[in-house]
Amino acid sequence: MDELLNSNIQIIDLLATKNWIEKNQNIISSKLNIDIIEITADELKKISSLTTPNEVFAVVKQAEFTFKIDEIKSELSLFLESINDPGNLGTIIRIADWFGIKNIFCSNDSVDVYNPKVVQASMGAIYRIKTHYVDSIDFLTELNQVDNFNIYGTFLEGDFIYKQELSESGLIIMGSESHGISKDIESFINQKLFIPNYPQDLKTSESLNISVATAIVCSEFRRKIF
Amino acid sequence: MDELLNSNIQIIDLLATKNWIEKNQNIISSKLNIDIIEITADELKKISSLTTPNEVFAVVKQAEFTFKIDEIKSELSLFLESINDPGNLGTIIRIADWFGIKNIFCSNDSVDVYNPKVVQASMGAIYRIKTHYVDSIDFLTELNQVDNFNIYGTFLEGDFIYKQELSESGLIIMGSESHGISKDIESFINQKLFIPNYPQDLKTSESLNISVATAIVCSEFRRKIF
Repeated sequence: MDELLNSNIQIIDLLATKNWIEKNQNIISSKLNIDIIEITADELKKISSLTTPNEVFAVVKQAEFTFKIDEIKSELSLFLESINDPGNLGTIIRIADWFGIKNIFCSNDSVDVYNPKVVQASMGAIYRIKTHYVDSIDFLTELNQVDNFNIYGTFLEGDFIYKQELSESGLIIMGSESHGISKDIESFINQKLFIPNYPQDLKTSESLNISVATAIVCSEFRRKIF
Repeated sequence: MDELLNSNIQIIDLLATKNWIEKNQNIISSKLNIDIIEITADELKKISSLTTPNEVFAVVKQAEFTFKIDEIKSELSLFLESINDPGNLGTIIRIADWFGIKNIFCSNDSVDVYNPKVVQASMGAIYRIKTHYVDSIDFLTELNQVDNFNIYGTFLEGDFIYKQELSESGLIIMGSESHGISKDIESFINQKLFIPNYPQDLKTSESLNISVATAIVCSEFRRKIF
């Protein structure tokens, strides 16, 4: 709730239990300029999709984000192709937040960022990170025209990520868990990366979960700065 | 299914649709020495906890794993304190499999490794990784007596992991997402590690998801070998 109140997201309605309202008089008087609707715990349970709902429920305006290629070209951003698991998208938004990635681009066929499971898994990061839905080819074609801009992707046949020079800005493309990165999108990638399994000669799992792989890749891009 | 058939897990019953049986005659004749029970897709749906069940359902003997401190002391292992989310435990088993970690130790109050959501999230890795349930204090007391054995843990006030000498063998302790590592267990830790957020001065999410943090830590331990 703190994260929502500290964001630029517009709150339309706030429904809360008597207990929550009594405990949060400070927040209410300093940060909210709408009337709070008092409801019972039972009523809250009916309107929430969570098994164990909190004491407060907010109706917020879905943010409409815009972006400029000029900003993107000097930052590190993520592109997710056909991501369909809401838990993974929420976890990736939380990872982006940790590693200072401000913009996530999703292909138009990806899961909705306002899916309740995305919101929950993001643990509040959804209020800080801009998630955009784009036509993949149009977006990548435009970015491809930027000079010296690197587009990375993860592939089982990629170069070991630990040994690569990774730029401070660029775009990291992560493919869907079931199908990887499609051929159309692969053609935009300058450098293929791979998180090697250990030991190399042992047969292990076929892949890492997409949010786990995203976390390791983001960590590798940021580690050199420390 | 391949992963189960290639493991040492004992299959007690195998129930499959006609379609699966017809497509897998090779596997059936070469790798299975039990009779297969043919069932319909509808029957399978009733016995499976998955919304979209596969075409085959196996009843297997729950493995009972043992370990020797002598083996553990020369390997890298994980210790999970009070992990309660089955999706996270399954994901961590899959991560361990990728990074060549053979043994995971869980405190006795952790979620059951045979919870269906653990099995599903592990994506078959559960058949290769040994997950043990232990009394935390007894186990750590015993490991603590091994010479030159490092016990690591992740803490918000730990040293930046990117700059540390990490040993090839040792124990990595991950705390529960809600409470972190308890004081009792903290006293066994030689080195506290932290995955720094970026940029350091920006207020971001309060923490990373436990499976995401485990992935980055395991990757850091293994990266030096490449």
